[in-house]
Amino acid sequence: METVTTIRAFQIARRTLKGSVGFVPTMGYLHEGHLSLARLAHTSCDAVVASIFVNPTQFAPTEDLAAYPRNLERDLALLESEGVELVLAPTSNEEFYPADYNTWVDVLGITQRLEGASRPTHFRGVATIVAKLFNVVQPQRAFFGQKDAQQALVIRRLVRDLNFPIELVLGPTIRESDGLAMSSRNAYLTPQQRAAAPVLRRCLDHVEALYDQGERHAETLRSEMTKILQAEPLALPDYVSVADLEAMEELEMVTDKALVSLAVRVGKTRLIDNTILPRGQGLF
Amino acid sequence: METVTTIRAFQIARRTLKGSVGFVPTMGYLHEGHLSLARLAHTSCDAVVASIFVNPTQFAPTEDLAAYPRNLERDLALLESEGVELVLAPTSNEEFYPADYNTWVDVLGITQRLEGASRPTHFRGVATIVAKLFNVVQPQRAFFGQKDAQQALVIRRLVRDLNFPIELVLGPTIRESDGLAMSSRNAYLTPQQRAAAPVLRRCLDHVEALYDQGERHAETLRSEMTKILQAEPLALPDYVSVADLEAMEELEMVTDKALVSLAVRVGKTRLIDNTILPRGQGLF
Repeated sequence: METVTTIRAFQIARRTLKGSVGFVPTMGYLHEGHLSLARLAHTSCDAVVASIFVNPTQFAPTEDLAAYPRNLERDLALLESEGVELVLAPTSNEEFYPADYNTWVDVLGITQRLEGASRPTHFRGVATIVAKLFNVVQPQRAFFGQKDAQQALVIRRLVRDLNFPIELVLGPTIRESDGLAMSSRNAYLTPQQRAAAPVLRRCLDHVEALYDQGERHAETLRSEMTKILQAEPLALPDYVSVADLEAMEELEMVTDKALVSLAVRVGKTRLIDNTILPRGQGLF
Repeated sequence: METVTTIRAFQIARRTLKGSVGFVPTMGYLHEGHLSLARLAHTSCDAVVASIFVNPTQFAPTEDLAAYPRNLERDLALLESEGVELVLAPTSNEEFYPADYNTWVDVLGITQRLEGASRPTHFRGVATIVAKLFNVVQPQRAFFGQKDAQQALVIRRLVRDLNFPIELVLGPTIRESDGLAMSSRNAYLTPQQRAAAPVLRRCLDHVEALYDQGERHAETLRSEMTKILQAEPLALPDYVSVADLEAMEELEMVTDKALVSLAVRVGKTRLIDNTILPRGQGLF
């Protein structure tokens, strides 16, 4: 595995990769979710490239950029053990955002709701860094996790609208044994908060069960999630949503595929999770 | 020469091109300026690709989108005579902008002034279509004319900020024998207006002469251009500018390279022209 810290060095190393390239962009502090994407990439690509970059432009000034967990040495060992061929891990933000940086990519519509409503500049930062990484890495396929479902839909729109010649592949959400979706931010949780965090998955389990029993009123599904969250004193709901998969608008009735998602603060940590109805359907 | 009307057909044809690809994006109604770029492209690239697409998103609702001159048959004959290998000429705007299109690329700063001040949504449309075309065409080099100097600087910034792996090459402004910069919009001019139109080049000639005589006060250069324009009854100045080449801010003194540019309405037709000081310097 070759690790480079500059775009220039990456471009030179990239030319040595033969055949199709799969790309797994990450913000580091890797967990089984990231590693499962690297494995998935190896099933369809000749070489796998990963990036490790805590992208500052997708954090608001009030958010956790400085505190975001980092462990580059461990991350590189994990990627090497997965057989990743090449890693771009810039050591400075200036590598992607020089002092006079001034170009932004905005996916409108879908970014105004849910995560975009709670974090108004978040998806501009995501779309911009993903466009930049796609131009640097030039992969045939790029791999993202379903845990960040709205992000995946935004990037699908970005790829389609800007005509990136890249196939997007989604990997399933990987969970701890008690159902908590894996996330680098889980590292923030105290033991007591960690014990409360599976409440997100319990909400989704309950919605899936109600749907299987025939419930199709989206407001009922939303209010059932809210009830479960209200019973957990450590959980402060940000949103609960049952939305369509194109514009991410709240549904009245679940007649077609729907994205059930929620964001919850547990202490200072904001956790998200989601599922697709009908159960077992893919996001794309 | 192969001509295709869809992105899908283009991508298939693109794969048959061997070696380095040079790209000349155009809005059609080709003149010697465009053709000189195709010739320039052939000097450094193995194959040359052109696009013909009157990009609707760079026109404001009040502008001349519907009236913009078109002659596809003549354009294709000219490109064929220049040895262009592949042309993308979509027959519908939906090919690039489907009904639910919603992604925009904004280069901030440099786009707020001059052309961007006169045409507030223009450069968003330019940056977006250029990003799309670059992803579709995937050239090694892209060729633009110095006549649209601010556009060239915006695209240079776009390429640098979004890490497009593309080299930009500028071709010189090509002029009629009386000095008028070639432009598809010259077709709008009545004979009387056409006779008045070389006033733009006369302004630049005068500024170059004053600079050669030692004049370095930018305001003097600007006011001398205004005087010449005021003496031409058919010319209505939009702006005269002596600006730096990075942020395009108006200069007080010309101490380094400067872009001298102007925009003038002659009847309903808006004409632009520019030169670089010191004379003979390139924009990049």
